[in-house]
Amino acid sequence: MSNEVSQPALQKQFDELVRESDRSRLADFLNYQNISDVAWLIDENEEDAVTIICGLEIQRAAGAFKILDLSAQKHIIQHLPPQKTAELLNELPSDDRTAFLEELPNEAVRELIKLLNPEERRFTLAQLGYPEESVGRLMTNDYLAVEDDWTVLEVLDHIRAFGKDIDNLDVIYVVNRQGQLVDDVRIRDFLLSPPERMVHEMVDGRCIALHVRDDQESANQVFKMNNRVALPVIDDRKVMLGIVTIDDVLWVANEEFSEDMQKMGGTEALDEPYLEIPILKLFKKRVVWLIVLFLGEMLTATAMGYYEAEIQRAVVLALFIPLIISSGGNSGSQASTLIIQAMAVGEIKMQDWWRVMRREIISGLLLGTVLGIIGFARVVVWSQFFPDMYGIHYREVGAAVGFSLLGVVLQGTLTGSMLPIILKKVGADPAVSSAPFVATIVDVTGLVIYFSFAFLFLKGLLL
Amino acid sequence: MSNEVSQPALQKQFDELVRESDRSRLADFLNYQNISDVAWLIDENEEDAVTIICGLEIQRAAGAFKILDLSAQKHIIQHLPPQKTAELLNELPSDDRTAFLEELPNEAVRELIKLLNPEERRFTLAQLGYPEESVGRLMTNDYLAVEDDWTVLEVLDHIRAFGKDIDNLDVIYVVNRQGQLVDDVRIRDFLLSPPERMVHEMVDGRCIALHVRDDQESANQVFKMNNRVALPVIDDRKVMLGIVTIDDVLWVANEEFSEDMQKMGGTEALDEPYLEIPILKLFKKRVVWLIVLFLGEMLTATAMGYYEAEIQRAVVLALFIPLIISSGGNSGSQASTLIIQAMAVGEIKMQDWWRVMRREIISGLLLGTVLGIIGFARVVVWSQFFPDMYGIHYREVGAAVGFSLLGVVLQGTLTGSMLPIILKKVGADPAVSSAPFVATIVDVTGLVIYFSFAFLFLKGLLL
Repeated sequence: MSNEVSQPALQKQFDELVRESDRSRLADFLNYQNISDVAWLIDENEEDAVTIICGLEIQRAAGAFKILDLSAQKHIIQHLPPQKTAELLNELPSDDRTAFLEELPNEAVRELIKLLNPEERRFTLAQLGYPEESVGRLMTNDYLAVEDDWTVLEVLDHIRAFGKDIDNLDVIYVVNRQGQLVDDVRIRDFLLSPPERMVHEMVDGRCIALHVRDDQESANQVFKMNNRVALPVIDDRKVMLGIVTIDDVLWVANEEFSEDMQKMGGTEALDEPYLEIPILKLFKKRVVWLIVLFLGEMLTATAMGYYEAEIQRAVVLALFIPLIISSGGNSGSQASTLIIQAMAVGEIKMQDWWRVMRREIISGLLLGTVLGIIGFARVVVWSQFFPDMYGIHYREVGAAVGFSLLGVVLQGTLTGSMLPIILKKVGADPAVSSAPFVATIVDVTGLVIYFSFAFLFLKGLLL
Repeated sequence: MSNEVSQPALQKQFDELVRESDRSRLADFLNYQNISDVAWLIDENEEDAVTIICGLEIQRAAGAFKILDLSAQKHIIQHLPPQKTAELLNELPSDDRTAFLEELPNEAVRELIKLLNPEERRFTLAQLGYPEESVGRLMTNDYLAVEDDWTVLEVLDHIRAFGKDIDNLDVIYVVNRQGQLVDDVRIRDFLLSPPERMVHEMVDGRCIALHVRDDQESANQVFKMNNRVALPVIDDRKVMLGIVTIDDVLWVANEEFSEDMQKMGGTEALDEPYLEIPILKLFKKRVVWLIVLFLGEMLTATAMGYYEAEIQRAVVLALFIPLIISSGGNSGSQASTLIIQAMAVGEIKMQDWWRVMRREIISGLLLGTVLGIIGFARVVVWSQFFPDMYGIHYREVGAAVGFSLLGVVLQGTLTGSMLPIILKKVGADPAVSSAPFVATIVDVTGLVIYFSFAFLFLKGLLL
């Protein structure tokens, strides 16, 4: 059963076997472990990675290789004997192989592709021709197709003859003589059918397929809504090109959510685990956005410069600046996350912008009113206890603070909600409109809103 | 093929059939569509939801029901005739049924459970006994188990006899006489084996299983690392209780990421699609956190109050307040998202806190130095063009600004990175340490840092 052996115990056993340098006992040990534990061992023992891969049965080597980090994968390919590299690459599921190749320099890709057998080479080259992040890049050719004019008996014979090396044998795909997809049929249905039955009698034509150029994120939605473990992929002429399996979609979903989150926090996507990314690379991923935001925030210093005389005359105004601009930033951050998240799962499309805007205007007014009232109350109540603090015009100061809060919160919800939609419209990634990005925009306008209300209420009194 | 009929066309056809009120033609139409399209129709035509469900074959009705929103599900159950409700609930996969029941009031659950047949009732009651968000709640009993002392022939006969109603027949589970899980075997392996072979000769004991009380998020990790479409679930004594299928894990992953994102944006998890949640509910989900943050931010007004006299004497100090506190907020937001995200996917565990802290101290010093230098340069350069703006002590003002930036950025990265770990340690959800939450903490301390450096550099000059 899984996880029976703890990882330290595993490491200890492994160390002993490496010390003994008995290759065959090491191989037995490795082939007995779960694939995920083997992958863990490779991660922890980079210097022994090649030994481990060479000790494994080739299918298991491929299974471990595909779940390794890119850096470990590169290390292995660079150090493996050419013969073993060829075996490994040919055994690797085509989608995982393509995912690995697309990260390598062109020259290395050319060299490695030469090692593939003709069929795998043809499939891989076709796959690299589809756009990045498309369904085509996620396909595998590891499936069995049968023709619709066969009998069940012929199908079962075909499965017995060619099924041994196929991983995804749970669903068999039915195509016509032109190679066009007709339907998918579960292997159990063939098993449960009389042998003389014709395949075309078994199909109901209710087959969901992905298009080869579809976005990978849309595949996630299709899997979510349809209870399938694999989906066939077709081109414009409905010719079947491959299948996408749900475990790859789960993998993509995990990665895309990670990227979205990181962007929303105001960092470039890391592409590597946090604890493993070199610290200078981590710095680079963060500093660019931080500088961009900083340059944006500099506008606040410029804006403040315009109001320097007012602050000089009424220092009390300065006290509420952090409170007001942060409230705008917070409401903007709420709105932008809600909208980016809803767009990511397909709940909001660009044409919904007006419905979103209407909702955010109402939300912004409600939220702003609540904060405005609390802000006004704070000034008035404090003035009773500390009469010197806000002076005799505390009511007007309170009104300026209260109305400014209403204004900046409304401004925050509108900016936060519309920016992701606008970014998507111009072809950018909505997740870029991160909380810090929205906050920066709202900070500058928030100052203008605040000093405008201050003029309105305090002109002739303090200003 | 999927998506051939556009949704408006689908709606039009549906409207016509409803007008004709020919039940049997409507049923034919509905049974021909993809399940996801039927679910879409139900969503768009709430008043006809019951008609649609009654028109569908019962398996398809269950398939559509389980992907509907909770509100649509409730509507249907409230309006469906009792006989049909019983059929539907019994047909529903047990995990989806439990997911639905756990959202209902206790009394309704009691009534509905009475409608289940004895076997389903027993399983559902057991399932409701496991903690929320545990693997147990995600299980289904829709699988086939065989015993390890059977022959392949006996297994195939068993499959033929009982396989018809089982959805997850691609993998067959092998248990011993005590019901303890021995292994999982693909149906294709039985198909490819000689009939007289014993089951226990086919098992290799390398079977990954989930524990019934494991967290659902950990199941995501196990699926990601092991190429399976379903995993068996066992209890402490290794007795097999059910299976979890990968499509449910994908569903859970999508929901959990949505919740995490919303929390990180400073909102409670919505639990409903953005465009469908009633606006007052949306307001409620947002206002609580916004008020909490606002009350926190009020401390900035208090802190500013302490420095009122200094601002009076050196108004120039006020100009950089938004810039400095926002920079702390931005770096904190970066750090907290990185850490929350890495914790969500299991890359960082609590015991890694020191490694994280070391990385964030270095990152904070680097990032802070960069922003500090830019900030200092900004003050000095501006002073050359606008000599009046920052006065004759512009170098000292620049130094105060620069060192404060270094301080707040370091403070931001430390707060942002440690807070999620501390929250997890005390049993709270790390995602609560949202960008706005971190920003609020950093704002207050940022002011203190800024005025401390101002004292240091400007004492005797401006202050």
